[in-house]
Amino acid sequence: MKLATLKTGGRDGTLVVVSRDLVTCQAVPGIARTLQSALDDWDQVAPHLQSVYEQLNAGTAPEADSFIEAECASPLPRAFQWADGSAYINHVELVRKARGAEVPPSFYTDPLMYQGGSDAFVGPCDPIAVLSEEWGVDLEAEVAVVTGDVPMGAGAEQTAAAIRLVMLVNDVSLRNLIPKELEKGFGFYQSKPASAFSPVAVTPDELGSAWRDARLHLPLVVTLNGQPFGRPNAGEDMTFSFAQLIAHAARTRELKAGSIIGSGTVSNKQGSLHGSSIEGGGVGYACLAELRMYETIEQGAPRTPFLRFGDTVRIEMQDGAGTSIFGAIEQEVAHYHGRKE
Amino acid sequence: MKLATLKTGGRDGTLVVVSRDLVTCQAVPGIARTLQSALDDWDQVAPHLQSVYEQLNAGTAPEADSFIEAECASPLPRAFQWADGSAYINHVELVRKARGAEVPPSFYTDPLMYQGGSDAFVGPCDPIAVLSEEWGVDLEAEVAVVTGDVPMGAGAEQTAAAIRLVMLVNDVSLRNLIPKELEKGFGFYQSKPASAFSPVAVTPDELGSAWRDARLHLPLVVTLNGQPFGRPNAGEDMTFSFAQLIAHAARTRELKAGSIIGSGTVSNKQGSLHGSSIEGGGVGYACLAELRMYETIEQGAPRTPFLRFGDTVRIEMQDGAGTSIFGAIEQEVAHYHGRKE
Repeated sequence: MKLATLKTGGRDGTLVVVSRDLVTCQAVPGIARTLQSALDDWDQVAPHLQSVYEQLNAGTAPEADSFIEAECASPLPRAFQWADGSAYINHVELVRKARGAEVPPSFYTDPLMYQGGSDAFVGPCDPIAVLSEEWGVDLEAEVAVVTGDVPMGAGAEQTAAAIRLVMLVNDVSLRNLIPKELEKGFGFYQSKPASAFSPVAVTPDELGSAWRDARLHLPLVVTLNGQPFGRPNAGEDMTFSFAQLIAHAARTRELKAGSIIGSGTVSNKQGSLHGSSIEGGGVGYACLAELRMYETIEQGAPRTPFLRFGDTVRIEMQDGAGTSIFGAIEQEVAHYHGRKE
Repeated sequence: MKLATLKTGGRDGTLVVVSRDLVTCQAVPGIARTLQSALDDWDQVAPHLQSVYEQLNAGTAPEADSFIEAECASPLPRAFQWADGSAYINHVELVRKARGAEVPPSFYTDPLMYQGGSDAFVGPCDPIAVLSEEWGVDLEAEVAVVTGDVPMGAGAEQTAAAIRLVMLVNDVSLRNLIPKELEKGFGFYQSKPASAFSPVAVTPDELGSAWRDARLHLPLVVTLNGQPFGRPNAGEDMTFSFAQLIAHAARTRELKAGSIIGSGTVSNKQGSLHGSSIEGGGVGYACLAELRMYETIEQGAPRTPFLRFGDTVRIEMQDGAGTSIFGAIEQEVAHYHGRKE
C-alpha cells in the first residue's frame, strides 16, 4: 500500500492512505492519525490501512479526496532516527579517485553510515532553504526505508523483515562545509541540513519483483532545471543491501519503529570505475559532486557549479508501466527566511 | 519547575510534574500527556504545568502521588534530535596530550558536535545493556538542555532564550569501537549506543544563580561502584556555552522543539592542563577515558579498565542545600537480552 502525510494537523501532519495511481487519498483518523503512530503499532494497524487502500484502488472509498503532492509533508515530517548509509561504493571510489586516494579494503565489508538530523524534515515540494549559495548546495538522490523495532545485534534476515516502508530522499549536502567539518573528526553536522522525502512511502510488496535482496531494482530519475541529470539503477552496484545497512545500525543498539535508514547517493559503475554523465552517454549521477569528480578525472577540473538560488531538482521513480511510484521530490533552492509550520 | 516521564502509557510515557524535593508528582493528562507534546506547545502549556508544580510544592495538589525515580523513563523517552557537543576542551586536550598531538586552534572557536541516536533512550535506572564487554564500555557524565524551536542562523542571545529544560545525561561510549569508526570519517555511530537522561528535567529558573551565561555552575557528582569518581564543576572550563552550542547546531538548519543539545563530558583543568583524579587530590573525571589518559600521562599506561558487567555508575547534582536537583542516573552494566517496552 501507499501512505503519505498531509501538512495539516500539526507537527506530525495527517496520515492519508493514497491510491496506487496517486490520484486519490483518504485520511484515516479512526485507524491512525499520524504515520508514526501507525508504525508504533504496525501489526495491528496495517491490515486496516490495507483495507482502505483496496477501497481507494477500487474507487469505493467512502471519503476519498484528491491527492495533491504539493500538500504533503515528508511521510514522517519528523522522525526519531535518520541514519544514512553510503552503500554505493562507486560514489566513494569516485570521490577518492578524483583526489588520488585509495579506498580502504574495509569499506567493501563495513558500511559507512552517519547519523542525520531528523527533527525538521522539509516537504517534498518545499524549498531547499539556505542562508548562502557559498555553502555549495548539492542534492543527493537516494532510496530510504522505514523500519519497525529491531533488536540489538539483529542479523540481515531479521532486519530485512523489519522493513515497513520504502521512499525516496533528497539528502541535501553543503559541499563547501564538508571538508572542514569532516577534518574535525566528528562527522557531518552543519554540512547536512534538512532532508526531504518523497510524497509517498510504499510497502515493499507494492514494488513487486523490483524489490529483491532488500534492494530496489529500478532507475532513480533525477532532473536538474528540467534537464535529465541521472537515471542510475538503485538495484545495481549497491554494495550493501538495506538489510545489511539496518544490521550495521543495530549492531550496538536497538532501533525503534519509525527509524529511517538511507542508501546513500545512488551511483552506478556502468562498466567503468566511475560511470559517466548523461551527456557523455552514461546514466549520469544522483549528485553534483559525482559529476564534478567525473569532470575532474576527465578534464582536470570540475566545470558544473553547485546549486544556485532558483535552481530546481526533481527526483522520481517509475514502475515498469511508467507510473510514478512515490510521487516526485521537486525542490527549488531558495534563501531561508524562516519557515511556516 | 521539574518534569519527568513515567514509563507507563506507551512509547512516549506519561508526563508528570514533580515537586521540588522530588518526593511527589502528578500526571497532567488534561494539560499534556507527554513531554514532547508539552514542548510542541510550550508557551500555552507551561503556565498550567507551573500551577501544578506550585500546588505540589505547597502540598495542595489534588492527585499527588509518590515520585519514584526507578519508574522513570528518560524525560524524553525518544526525541527528534540529540546532538552532543564537546564543550570542555580540557577533555580534548587530555585525549590529544596522551597521544602527543596538538589541539587545532579552531577547536577553541568552532565547537565539536556529533549527531546522536535519539529513538531509543534508556531510563535513568535502566541497565547499560551491551553484547560484549570487549566494546570498552565507558560513561560520559554531561549536562544537556532541551530547546524550543530555533530558526536557522539564530545567534547566541536568541538560542539562550530557547532553552526550555536542563537535565543530566550519561552518554555511554564504546571506546574500543571509536578509533576504527572515526577513521572511516563519518563520525560516531556504533560507538555511541543508547544514552540515559536524569529522571527529572528542570526549567532554568529552577537553578537560580547556578544557571548563568547559559552554563550550569555546580559540581556534577559521579560515583563508580559506590566510590567517588568525579565532581567537576559543570560551569568551569566550559569553552562553549549552551547558547553557543545551540547556535552551532542551528547554523544551517532549523531546530525543532524537543531538540536535546549536550555539553560533552564535563572536565575541569584544575589549574593544570589535564586535571587529576580524586585519589590524586583533584576533582576527578566524568568518564573513564580521561582517567586513563591521566594515567597514561602520569604513569606511562592506563591502569583503570573500562566498565565490566555488574559495574554501577551514578550521576547526580545537588543544589547548595544538598538536595538532588535532577534525581540520579544509576545504571548497571548488563548483558543485552532484549528490552521490555
